[in-house]
Amino acid sequence: MNMNFNLSEMEGENKAEELSNEEIYDVLILGAGPAGMTAAVYCMRKGVNTGLLTDNVGGQVAKTSSVENYMGYRYIEGSDLVQKFQDQVKQFPIGYKEGARAIEIQQGNIKKVITGDGNVYQGKSLVLATGKSPRWLNVPGEDKYMGRGIAVCAICDAPLYKDKDVIVVGGGNSGAEATIDLAKVANHITIIQDKDRLTADRILLDKLNQFDNFDTLLEHKVTRIFGTENLEGVEVKNIKTGEKNKLDVQGVFVEIGWVPNSEFIKDTLSLNRWNEINIDCACRTSEQGIFAAGDVSSVPYKQIIAAAGDGAKAALSACEYVMKK
Amino acid sequence: MNMNFNLSEMEGENKAEELSNEEIYDVLILGAGPAGMTAAVYCMRKGVNTGLLTDNVGGQVAKTSSVENYMGYRYIEGSDLVQKFQDQVKQFPIGYKEGARAIEIQQGNIKKVITGDGNVYQGKSLVLATGKSPRWLNVPGEDKYMGRGIAVCAICDAPLYKDKDVIVVGGGNSGAEATIDLAKVANHITIIQDKDRLTADRILLDKLNQFDNFDTLLEHKVTRIFGTENLEGVEVKNIKTGEKNKLDVQGVFVEIGWVPNSEFIKDTLSLNRWNEINIDCACRTSEQGIFAAGDVSSVPYKQIIAAAGDGAKAALSACEYVMKK
Repeated sequence: MNMNFNLSEMEGENKAEELSNEEIYDVLILGAGPAGMTAAVYCMRKGVNTGLLTDNVGGQVAKTSSVENYMGYRYIEGSDLVQKFQDQVKQFPIGYKEGARAIEIQQGNIKKVITGDGNVYQGKSLVLATGKSPRWLNVPGEDKYMGRGIAVCAICDAPLYKDKDVIVVGGGNSGAEATIDLAKVANHITIIQDKDRLTADRILLDKLNQFDNFDTLLEHKVTRIFGTENLEGVEVKNIKTGEKNKLDVQGVFVEIGWVPNSEFIKDTLSLNRWNEINIDCACRTSEQGIFAAGDVSSVPYKQIIAAAGDGAKAALSACEYVMKK
Repeated sequence: MNMNFNLSEMEGENKAEELSNEEIYDVLILGAGPAGMTAAVYCMRKGVNTGLLTDNVGGQVAKTSSVENYMGYRYIEGSDLVQKFQDQVKQFPIGYKEGARAIEIQQGNIKKVITGDGNVYQGKSLVLATGKSPRWLNVPGEDKYMGRGIAVCAICDAPLYKDKDVIVVGGGNSGAEATIDLAKVANHITIIQDKDRLTADRILLDKLNQFDNFDTLLEHKVTRIFGTENLEGVEVKNIKTGEKNKLDVQGVFVEIGWVPNSEFIKDTLSLNRWNEINIDCACRTSEQGIFAAGDVSSVPYKQIIAAAGDGAKAALSACEYVMKK
């Protein structure tokens, strides 16, 4: 029915161009998770001159094994979904740069974005979709064994812990998913949870309970990580009694949540108490011409489909702002 | 990596059950467009008892030919995307009923939904995702030739107008898409637009301009539809000069926008000036336990991905409400 119009179905075309530090983009998007990439597609379809600057592609989705709640796919690997999003972005001649992070924004009629590698990029409007980064435990030993026994990406690192004993800190959805990934390869997993129950979705808990090589330590937290050359164990503390115990483990997976990447904008925009960028339902921030979407924003639910949906809204708000100027 | 967990990938399983008028559902969802179906998947994954009541499946997407701005698919037919959404919903034992429309809501601790066919369904919370219906011209002759020369779904009805002359009323995205669908089969199309330019996205206008069998009548509106047995023409009026003219055509495609399906709830909920249900960024309405998402809601941009994203938010808000009760 649409045989004349399948230009966008051609495989492998990559029309993206190098992001220019001379051009003034109509919309400059920061971040290439679901929100940023959706914003990019919407802006390009609107025919406005668009730039995309990001330190990584896919955000948290790239670190997710199985995605079963993105509509359109009953099941898809996170990395596959990211690839599909990215293909959709790069079918357009968008200004594109990977591997750089904004460290400062200068507000004004033209907004300037200063990156860690010393470049300056310019946009008449900005869409901030910089997502979140993992929250750390902040306990003694964490720095020493980071990347050498301490991990945040079970899907990436689980194979390194084949037949070993590990802990997963955190009993929400991320903790349950990490435990499921680990249970297939590790010898034994202990989930450390500070609350009195696991808070993951029922469907994840049901999956988790198909395994018998894990147990759960409720109302405990990790107070120290120790070892010699390699990580050898953790000290845990019962929150109610204060009693401390040691667990001999070779791996620690930290799944206790995420911190918004809003540091670079904190002097310019209104943030909420969790340092998320306050937005209204049209993804407008407290400043003219600056829009935000996805996990860095104040929307209460952090989901791939919600981030993508808000990315579309932020893009359309930005396009409208630019058209009216 | 997830070979043990592909239950949901099995083809063809349909676990949906008949919606019960005895059960009190935790969440009762009205509408099965992108917002309603996403809400259903999110509720079922949360493990709450969920019902879905709808008069049609897919909403406007079912009437859309090519979808190129839904992330995850560079190109997909609207009907295919609807099928994928529906498969995701029916993998769960959800209470499901098609072909009935809510005509009244009774608010209370338990919310009652009365349908046109005389049934009453009950939910502790509601997610309203009833979408919009086409706006009509309200001119003489419209009723007479409805479905006999007047259409709202180019993708459905274009083949009936092979080699004929037709008009498309409306020059926004819907009008441009309808014209593209018609241009492949009809002899000639005239777009009637009341504004001084077509307001469709650039990418659609570029596609449209690949055809030479259409023209555009700006700043005109349709004032009458005439014919004998069959529709034979329309009277159009120049908005600026008042001058009237006749066009001999055999088909009229009405693409002038949509009216929210909020009539049944207008005495219960706060609506905006366009009769859309006012929601906040967590999809809460003016009443406790009633949530809304998608095109029937007050979000400014009507897009598949935005409706789906808000469907997820509405579902999570409803689940949270039910859990806290």
